[in-house]
Amino acid sequence: MTDQRIYNFNAGPAALPLSVLEEIQASFLNFKNSGMSITEISHRSSYFDEVINDAVERVKRLLKLDDRFHVLFVQGGASLQFAMIPMNLLAPDDAADYINTGTWSTKAIAEAQKMGKSVHVVASSEDKNFSYIPQNIAFNPSSKFVHLTSNNTIKGTQFYEFPDTKGIPIVADMSSDIFSRPLPMEKFGLIYAGAQKNLGPSGTCMVIIRKDLVDSGNENLPTMLKYSTYSTKNSMYNTPPCFGIYTIDLVLKWIEEEMGGIEKMEEHNIKKADVLYDAIDASSFYTTTAEKYSRSLMNVTFRLPSEDLERDFVERANQHGLGGLKGHRSVGGCRASIYNAASMESMYALVEFMESFEKENK
Amino acid sequence: MTDQRIYNFNAGPAALPLSVLEEIQASFLNFKNSGMSITEISHRSSYFDEVINDAVERVKRLLKLDDRFHVLFVQGGASLQFAMIPMNLLAPDDAADYINTGTWSTKAIAEAQKMGKSVHVVASSEDKNFSYIPQNIAFNPSSKFVHLTSNNTIKGTQFYEFPDTKGIPIVADMSSDIFSRPLPMEKFGLIYAGAQKNLGPSGTCMVIIRKDLVDSGNENLPTMLKYSTYSTKNSMYNTPPCFGIYTIDLVLKWIEEEMGGIEKMEEHNIKKADVLYDAIDASSFYTTTAEKYSRSLMNVTFRLPSEDLERDFVERANQHGLGGLKGHRSVGGCRASIYNAASMESMYALVEFMESFEKENK
Repeated sequence: MTDQRIYNFNAGPAALPLSVLEEIQASFLNFKNSGMSITEISHRSSYFDEVINDAVERVKRLLKLDDRFHVLFVQGGASLQFAMIPMNLLAPDDAADYINTGTWSTKAIAEAQKMGKSVHVVASSEDKNFSYIPQNIAFNPSSKFVHLTSNNTIKGTQFYEFPDTKGIPIVADMSSDIFSRPLPMEKFGLIYAGAQKNLGPSGTCMVIIRKDLVDSGNENLPTMLKYSTYSTKNSMYNTPPCFGIYTIDLVLKWIEEEMGGIEKMEEHNIKKADVLYDAIDASSFYTTTAEKYSRSLMNVTFRLPSEDLERDFVERANQHGLGGLKGHRSVGGCRASIYNAASMESMYALVEFMESFEKENK
Repeated sequence: MTDQRIYNFNAGPAALPLSVLEEIQASFLNFKNSGMSITEISHRSSYFDEVINDAVERVKRLLKLDDRFHVLFVQGGASLQFAMIPMNLLAPDDAADYINTGTWSTKAIAEAQKMGKSVHVVASSEDKNFSYIPQNIAFNPSSKFVHLTSNNTIKGTQFYEFPDTKGIPIVADMSSDIFSRPLPMEKFGLIYAGAQKNLGPSGTCMVIIRKDLVDSGNENLPTMLKYSTYSTKNSMYNTPPCFGIYTIDLVLKWIEEEMGGIEKMEEHNIKKADVLYDAIDASSFYTTTAEKYSRSLMNVTFRLPSEDLERDFVERANQHGLGGLKGHRSVGGCRASIYNAASMESMYALVEFMESFEKENK
């Protein structure tokens, strides 16, 4: 903690690197000696061109993207992507495979069906309350893409390996684990991520799309819902969410220059999650809700012996400067969201608190 | 100017009140003693509930809205509204009247037509290069709404009075003059405004909609494109653009508490524009592009005797700490955008510079 800052375990919007926040604060009245705030500069200026181009280049370096991919910034969150993906990628007779691993996948499926698209739910972990990631899935060879949610914030599960789809491009909602680890990009056709967990403030969604998919489906869409509107104008057909893109650029810079790149970021994230899962596994008071081989490195979901104890735990933790530990309102329990920006220090602080709470309440 | 800040005449993103920027900066690492940045707090927290509810209440007070209206925050800018409005308000057999006063109206019309809607362009000022606001328009009594752009940033024109539509609700793009003056709300069915001119940073669009219009058209729309998704969830069906809404709330507070309300804001804006137009009218070197009775109080568009002089003017003004005076790339010339946050001091500074530039170059 610095001054009065807490350890922030919010699921999203979530903790951002302190050095990023400090840089935003320091230059907030005068961005790069422009005499203007970043919130006041024109998106048609060289100041902003540098910001957005730097962000795109950092994404390409971090994920080792080649020229087959566009990096776009779209508004409306992942929820708008649930509609844009089938609208843009599927022609009227096309079909897609979807893997259902929880709340967000379920919404993505429902939205594609609402668009009148042919959707095959080829695997689901609903039979065990979404506590695991399905394996050995048979895909439909004629499907245009396979949609999955790489990390499930509410149920606390995560794909460690991405399925072998026999060449069908994977379309992945990575809102909660983008840039937390290197990715086998050859498997992906489209990756999307609402910024407010691992990337920046809410209000900007990053879309990484293989160029051949941009115009693969319906052409007659509203201008702001066509990927080509963004890909042909460097995401600036209309005014983009400048402050969000600026913050994302700083977060990407932090990953590259302070954390040492995405492989180091992954190592750090594994170590952080290990500290927490080891403590939970060593206890009979705390239990995780996800099956062991599917546990998320980003959202550690766990239960206490009773709902009363859980309420007390969250409240007492708050008093100790550990915020955001309440589970999603749809499932209850507790959840520690430990995205890229969560520090190792915060893991130790949480584990220490958990141990003392257990001693007092066992 | 404070420290190294310039006089910012950008068309959008544009100048924000300095006191608002200072408040954001001061609390950026610790919002309301939460121990988190405003960019890190959950949209499901009481902290953010207070922000969004305060913003909505301030809108209602400033515009004297009664309970017939919702105040919503949507992403995607005014450009997405160009599609959402006909999608939501027009059933398959419905038609709408559109008034064409320039670039943005033209785009709104094109998008409604793209949605397959029946659009009547009942008036246009295209015959004189959009230099005036059409008067004495005959509307189609069966049209569901009349769409207009209240202020035209590129051509520098503005509706002073809103037309008598014989009860047909007006749908207005007020991106560039919302909260610059009181409004006869009984005439309006829907008002929308991208925030980045008079309200806050880019990435948030305010939509004020009469409740009976929310579900008046097509029901089978993508979730994120239905107004009812926003109106039933206080704009928080998914994660809203929190930083944008927070800044908007501070700007509205500034209008109410520092500027003295919307009537005072209008007086201030008239005085500011008068200073600039009086100087231009007194000169034969500068000429406005808009007809006198249609001149915008927000975007003062003017020409110099030659394009070379215009280039020189913009460059020299920049060197003197007067930024953003270049006209829109589609029309050339010069433009001073003097939204709510532009100070009287900046008007005097601009006029002084204009006079000295004229003397040197006449």
